[in-house]
Amino acid sequence: MMAAKQLLVVGASMLATAFSGGAFSQETDGQYVQVAQIEIDPAQLESYRAAAREQFDAAIREEPGVLVLYSVSENDNPAHIIVFEIYKDRQAYRSHLETPHFKKYKAITANMVKSLTLIQSTPIMLGAKAK
Amino acid sequence: MMAAKQLLVVGASMLATAFSGGAFSQETDGQYVQVAQIEIDPAQLESYRAAAREQFDAAIREEPGVLVLYSVSENDNPAHIIVFEIYKDRQAYRSHLETPHFKKYKAITANMVKSLTLIQSTPIMLGAKAK
Repeated sequence: MMAAKQLLVVGASMLATAFSGGAFSQETDGQYVQVAQIEIDPAQLESYRAAAREQFDAAIREEPGVLVLYSVSENDNPAHIIVFEIYKDRQAYRSHLETPHFKKYKAITANMVKSLTLIQSTPIMLGAKAK
Repeated sequence: MMAAKQLLVVGASMLATAFSGGAFSQETDGQYVQVAQIEIDPAQLESYRAAAREQFDAAIREEPGVLVLYSVSENDNPAHIIVFEIYKDRQAYRSHLETPHFKKYKAITANMVKSLTLIQSTPIMLGAKAK
């Protein structure tokens, strides 16, 4: 539980640095932003969630270039997963794919994932509450 | 530019409070999480982006219950917009729909939006970098 809470503490200064060029797409070329749409075998959904949490937890803790990993399940179809991902840059994303935790996740979930669509994207506005 | 930078400073304490139950779906029932998929008339894309930025800027600044609004454009089809939205609770989302800035945005973009799909979702893991 503590680890989960810790992950949810969003680093204001880090994100401010990451997007210091502003929210306009032409000014945030450095970051690598991706939306993943994943369809899971419904019978293995709980196992998938556990594997995803373990992987994301490690990525956020251990990889300096992994800035945001928001993973959600569609209410009307919980086996449809959407992940919103922000990396410091393209190289940070490439490095992520080579980490032991990511490779373990891919191996564990290989027979759980029915389809995977990766959508490279460009920010229009990345707005979050400042307190 | 300053306004945009200000928006991007994510409030650590606020998000920590919002997700203080942890990242597990059954413990974050209070928050209202939604992914919007929006298809824009390509000829009006720049006008749409401007209207969206103005609305999101106002929502983040003026509405205490609007926690995250991440809007991105798909690289392979920039007229496809994806918005990742986190509200404090369902009431905060309902209030958002009644604000002058949201109503203005809806009026301005009515003839720009070709389709809109709203996907209510439940968090699996909302992980972001703490510095």
